[in-house]
Amino acid sequence: MMIYLDNAATTKPNLQAVERARVYLTDNFYNPSALYKEGFAMQNDIKKARSALLSFVANEREFEWVFTSCGTESDNHAVFTFAKRGNAVTAEGEHSAIENSFKELQNRGVEVRKAPLEKDGSVNVEKLLSLIDEKTSFVSVMHVNNETGAINDINAIAKAVKQKNPRAIFHSDGVQAYGKLPVRLEKEVDLYSVSAHKIGGLKGVGGLIKRKSLVLSPYIYGGGQEQGRRSGTENTFGIMQFAFAAEQKYAAISADFARLSSYREKFWELLDRDIFTRISSENASPYILCLSAKGLRGEILLHLANDEGLIIGTGSACSSNAKTRYSRVLKACGYDNETADGELRISFSSETTEEEVERGAQILNAVARKLKGKMN
Amino acid sequence: MMIYLDNAATTKPNLQAVERARVYLTDNFYNPSALYKEGFAMQNDIKKARSALLSFVANEREFEWVFTSCGTESDNHAVFTFAKRGNAVTAEGEHSAIENSFKELQNRGVEVRKAPLEKDGSVNVEKLLSLIDEKTSFVSVMHVNNETGAINDINAIAKAVKQKNPRAIFHSDGVQAYGKLPVRLEKEVDLYSVSAHKIGGLKGVGGLIKRKSLVLSPYIYGGGQEQGRRSGTENTFGIMQFAFAAEQKYAAISADFARLSSYREKFWELLDRDIFTRISSENASPYILCLSAKGLRGEILLHLANDEGLIIGTGSACSSNAKTRYSRVLKACGYDNETADGELRISFSSETTEEEVERGAQILNAVARKLKGKMN
Repeated sequence: MMIYLDNAATTKPNLQAVERARVYLTDNFYNPSALYKEGFAMQNDIKKARSALLSFVANEREFEWVFTSCGTESDNHAVFTFAKRGNAVTAEGEHSAIENSFKELQNRGVEVRKAPLEKDGSVNVEKLLSLIDEKTSFVSVMHVNNETGAINDINAIAKAVKQKNPRAIFHSDGVQAYGKLPVRLEKEVDLYSVSAHKIGGLKGVGGLIKRKSLVLSPYIYGGGQEQGRRSGTENTFGIMQFAFAAEQKYAAISADFARLSSYREKFWELLDRDIFTRISSENASPYILCLSAKGLRGEILLHLANDEGLIIGTGSACSSNAKTRYSRVLKACGYDNETADGELRISFSSETTEEEVERGAQILNAVARKLKGKMN
Repeated sequence: MMIYLDNAATTKPNLQAVERARVYLTDNFYNPSALYKEGFAMQNDIKKARSALLSFVANEREFEWVFTSCGTESDNHAVFTFAKRGNAVTAEGEHSAIENSFKELQNRGVEVRKAPLEKDGSVNVEKLLSLIDEKTSFVSVMHVNNETGAINDINAIAKAVKQKNPRAIFHSDGVQAYGKLPVRLEKEVDLYSVSAHKIGGLKGVGGLIKRKSLVLSPYIYGGGQEQGRRSGTENTFGIMQFAFAAEQKYAAISADFARLSSYREKFWELLDRDIFTRISSENASPYILCLSAKGLRGEILLHLANDEGLIIGTGSACSSNAKTRYSRVLKACGYDNETADGELRISFSSETTEEEVERGAQILNAVARKLKGKMN
């Protein structure tokens, strides 16, 4: 039985939620835009799912939820509909959905400004704020860094951003936070991106939370679904399964947070300190433990562990298509090439067991010792 | 048991294909970008699905397939990445994904030109060609009209377009054709949009077929999935289920085409000619029969039929969010308001049975006679 500790890349779908949603593959397969009663019923179920998914993190009087096809689409929607003028501010070490959207902004003539990271991968807030001026149209700061797990206090950052420029739109990629951190959005956060498949939902479903009074232009034009903000027939099965999976996550969010904090520390305590350096700080998300086996190659360790029945990551799965060898995020944290090259990301889910944590650390020690021995 | 004859809006998912793809919800849930062997295996399965889905309609040496989240996204991707300069040409009566994208093009300063329709909903080709000049950057003509079922000979149209301007990019929305018409794309078609949920696939999956030598800019930026053309973690379950559903469709495509042609004619023969006028021509797609109960309201007939166990549509489900009462398509075909107001769309799938056709026509006659009686 494989031990799966790459849950920041994707999680195993919640099969109870799949079963609950199964009716949307069979009897309730209708087009939610249809005018007959079965279509209206489908529309109504989506409305309930939308309301539930939003209510877990935000006040329904102040915020709204737009369904999208993934967190990346949500990020693109936010960036390209708001960052049109002046300058746009973000940080080094954002997820590639923001990083590469900002690159495209530059091609379109928008000035891009990037704040540096602290050693743990969180944003240097003082420097971020110093980049914001009266010409700043858009600011994007991720909630939880997907490689190091560092948590940014986005409510506080959003407030400080608005104090410097009340017209700047504040967005946060919440993909590694939604369903994991017991945090609610305050009114200074204008936009928040969410993904289903990081918390037991299916790939192909996401959300963009927006402040109600903010006018959001469409990014995909067509039949006028999602109140005209995101056209295309709704992914009914995926949406309903997401709502059911999130319901379970939020019912246990604080207990999971506490348990996974202890698992993360246990994993770290079991590791061979002669080999591994810890990148993630103690106040990072308990779902992510970023390490470096300095002097060894993370990718080789990943394959060796894989052969022994342990699945882990090296940085972001979404960067594995990138051509650069060294983690962009770890370089931005100030680590040298050797540390970045030894990067490993261990990421947990609420399904992770204590036994998997113990066995996982043992396997990782064993393969790293073996590799190190061969190299000496 | 409901008789479902609104298959142009969406089809019931193919449950055999769901069962075959179920493993991608359970054991094979991995992120296809992951570097361990389970990730590569997932990437490989997607590659096979991509190749199969493409091979059904196009030569793999000349064309490529990009997975998207829906037909609407595919259309938007084509329009907004190619129609940037000069003028863009389309026709009246396109699906709202093209209609509303072209409206947005106008806002962005691109000149939009629209060809009129023939009475059956097909494009007036001569007039379309007369709109194309050396400044035309993009041309979009749908393969099958989603309201009337009219088939445009897109291979011939693309050829003629290229003769007038070889640099104009030719796109076609193939959402109502893929898996239904036994047609293959010729090399003059640059781009072709496809949707899964119209042929037993799931909502939330689509494709954009492109000519290999055409450079396609991303519409969604991020982790570089789909060779950088469409970022976002792949909808693995949806993609695999789509490939399995399409495989079944293409295995029976000519037989289904012939059988549904006879069903469509049977349905029409059973209808009360004192009430119903036929909009769809005989050489339209056999999957769609567009009618008008002139003098009666289509929407009321839809509800009355619904109460009697028959589900049908009035024009496009994707237009039901629109504020206009009369079908934009039927108006463009030259019909008066009364005919447009009486519009009904009966749409079949390969699952439709002869019994459903007979019973459906009986119900429709009965409710229309009753309504007409009340009005006299």
